[in-house]
Amino acid sequence: MRAAKPARMGRFPSGARSPHAMNAAKVAIIGFGTIGSGVAKILLESGNRLGRHAGRPIELVRIVDPDLVRPRNVAVPRELLTSDLEVVLNDPEIVAAVELIGGLEPARSIVLKLLASGKNVVTANKALLAEHGRELFDCARRHGRSIAFEASVGGGIPIIAAIGQSLTANQVLSIHGILNGTSNFILTQMEEHHAEYSAAVAEAQRLGYAEANPAMDVNGSDAAQKLAILAHLAFGAQVDWKAIPRVGIDTVDVSDLRYAKELGYSIKLLAIAELASDGLELHVSPTLVRHGTPLAEVRGAYNAIRVVGDAVGRVFFHGLGAGQMPTASAVVADLIDTIVGRAAITFRALGLWSGRGEAAVTLRDPAKSAGRYYLRFNVQDSPGVLAQIAGILGKHAISIASVIQHETEEEADGVVPLVIMTHKAPEGAMIQAMAAIDRLPFVHPTSVRMRVRD
Amino acid sequence: MRAAKPARMGRFPSGARSPHAMNAAKVAIIGFGTIGSGVAKILLESGNRLGRHAGRPIELVRIVDPDLVRPRNVAVPRELLTSDLEVVLNDPEIVAAVELIGGLEPARSIVLKLLASGKNVVTANKALLAEHGRELFDCARRHGRSIAFEASVGGGIPIIAAIGQSLTANQVLSIHGILNGTSNFILTQMEEHHAEYSAAVAEAQRLGYAEANPAMDVNGSDAAQKLAILAHLAFGAQVDWKAIPRVGIDTVDVSDLRYAKELGYSIKLLAIAELASDGLELHVSPTLVRHGTPLAEVRGAYNAIRVVGDAVGRVFFHGLGAGQMPTASAVVADLIDTIVGRAAITFRALGLWSGRGEAAVTLRDPAKSAGRYYLRFNVQDSPGVLAQIAGILGKHAISIASVIQHETEEEADGVVPLVIMTHKAPEGAMIQAMAAIDRLPFVHPTSVRMRVRD
Repeated sequence: MRAAKPARMGRFPSGARSPHAMNAAKVAIIGFGTIGSGVAKILLESGNRLGRHAGRPIELVRIVDPDLVRPRNVAVPRELLTSDLEVVLNDPEIVAAVELIGGLEPARSIVLKLLASGKNVVTANKALLAEHGRELFDCARRHGRSIAFEASVGGGIPIIAAIGQSLTANQVLSIHGILNGTSNFILTQMEEHHAEYSAAVAEAQRLGYAEANPAMDVNGSDAAQKLAILAHLAFGAQVDWKAIPRVGIDTVDVSDLRYAKELGYSIKLLAIAELASDGLELHVSPTLVRHGTPLAEVRGAYNAIRVVGDAVGRVFFHGLGAGQMPTASAVVADLIDTIVGRAAITFRALGLWSGRGEAAVTLRDPAKSAGRYYLRFNVQDSPGVLAQIAGILGKHAISIASVIQHETEEEADGVVPLVIMTHKAPEGAMIQAMAAIDRLPFVHPTSVRMRVRD
Repeated sequence: MRAAKPARMGRFPSGARSPHAMNAAKVAIIGFGTIGSGVAKILLESGNRLGRHAGRPIELVRIVDPDLVRPRNVAVPRELLTSDLEVVLNDPEIVAAVELIGGLEPARSIVLKLLASGKNVVTANKALLAEHGRELFDCARRHGRSIAFEASVGGGIPIIAAIGQSLTANQVLSIHGILNGTSNFILTQMEEHHAEYSAAVAEAQRLGYAEANPAMDVNGSDAAQKLAILAHLAFGAQVDWKAIPRVGIDTVDVSDLRYAKELGYSIKLLAIAELASDGLELHVSPTLVRHGTPLAEVRGAYNAIRVVGDAVGRVFFHGLGAGQMPTASAVVADLIDTIVGRAAITFRALGLWSGRGEAAVTLRDPAKSAGRYYLRFNVQDSPGVLAQIAGILGKHAISIASVIQHETEEEADGVVPLVIMTHKAPEGAMIQAMAAIDRLPFVHPTSVRMRVRD
């Protein structure tokens, strides 16, 4: 037993210099869409460099996809393509497979089959992990295989490695992320070009940043799934992503971006995990972020993550959060990690979805959290309106930091926007006050409430 | 031989669940200064968390330092302290030692002894790696041990892991780094508080950001050592750090920061590695960086690194580049990596200072590089001055983008600053033109030339 120790402590595995060391590591891609094509491109075109990092050549031997004829932007030898997953499952020489199908099924069944047939898995599928993480990771553990998923959050930004490996000396205190590039692109369009929400969505679709049905991106679900993965990694919190309170950018009006700018803020869809004395607070929502702070300067389809650790302080990561090649970059790094054996060690060390260490984390009651708020009401322009609204806020112990009401903005029906920025107030009191204000006869739907971060 | 393969491909080493798995991993700290105290603090106070990540408890068993009585900001059991390195060298149960002595000797001899006695080494010592990397890494390879050095560049920013692991699918195209927190603190003081250079240095010393002799920090040497390490990692370029052209911030006048601001720029000490068709360009120098770009917004003692890869695009990292706890965060992450076995794999995969793959990289002749320049001349305020200077620039095919000459700034002796921003010009032509201008009778020393990045 004693003899095993040095091998775990940093000696090179004895096989590393055996004649087999230069045998190619055979890999397969399942799902030949945009990301799959990018991964194939890197594997086929950068062989020498990858082989140097992996200690032996990496050979792409199969690409599985039901559609074998659609043109892709990479030239692939015809014999690599197959529509039959069994070809991969039955090839014992394939050591790792990349799942790039996306969505829940058949991705879930395929990953389970890959693991059961002895393949290590690399995936970019955050929905699959957020929904079926436990089942998949249990399956991998049962079969002594690893799942690597750097590409599932933050695209090309190595945030999984950062939180899962590089920052492990820290108690993570908070994570603030712009995790959905589509939403950020749309908000940037609205802010910089004063585009209406629907026009900005159309532009995002035209440029390929948004799908035909962008619901999961714009309603905060995609960001919540990614936040669930990061929260599990950083805090051991095994959270159902659907339990994370979330508001999407579909609630943001172009006028809110204008008022926010006037107050010195941008609006970003922030995914937030914050450790408080009474638990972990998780939420996704459009949030006012002060100009000049790094998160406020994240534009277009970029993602960014700000992590605060008790030792390291504030660390900030910024890069392309989606797209063919950035995502492929993360997938191929995971493949190399898998081949050299780092992925197996990390998979074991993290023990994700294993039930380990979860007892310590309780989710905080959102009503107990406190913050500053941006409020916008549509009010009938008549005497005493501001006084009554301010009165209700005051009754709930919410004090006002600033007010915007422009004379010029009266609409045809005499309805004007009234914007209020509050000082710090508990979420619970805020919700009650908003409900009371919304019952006032001169307040028209829909009132807007957004958190503010300084 | 075949049987070894699955073990390398992701199976758990069979020892992982043996009764020995929970044996503590014993480690030692060599050098009980600021960083050493920080590492001891994390190891002693966060045992549970670290043990979870390392798969078994991490036990700090020795701290070696000649000074056993000086008070530190951490309470350490007296029996851990020793001034005798032999105690560590002769303890076969110590699996990893952290070198935090700094400087070249005795750090070099001690690391060689640690490796020879079978310890894996973690170090934060960029000077040691830049100067003696080959000897130390060869020694580690000879003894089948690893050297981990995340803390040597960028403090708490996981830039070594990012370039060495997470971005390995990419051909790195460029690295732009603010790698010296002391210089950045001083430049920020000068820019924001209009402090003269010497006053800003004194303030940095008062706050502990600069040493009594800050030469290595402010003259660009520290940044050049870090750049040499990053360039080796990203490009396989084994460069003598002393061969990297470097200019320090001691050449920057507070007026340059003012003029730069007027033109829309900040001045940062940038360490740059850039791959061109005719080789790799490396240099460290104060550089004008356009307001609104992420590097321009890096203030105080922070570091930042912008990496461009052919697949991932632009990735940006920002965090505290020095200081007790951020550096300790990186050191302890390396310790965990060493204990779980990732460091051994990474050490082997990187093959640093092994002579592998270096043939491909040639350093580019700096005279061949081209860029925009900021120039400041001290000129006698007389007719025809600008015409003559512009004429010389024109003769060298350097065209002028903007000029600043303020009437109000004439000094007692009739000498005024003349600031010129050029369009893109070759460095060689720029040097010749500057020499010709400096020979003009009405130009007083010392003319200033800085690169501009857009």
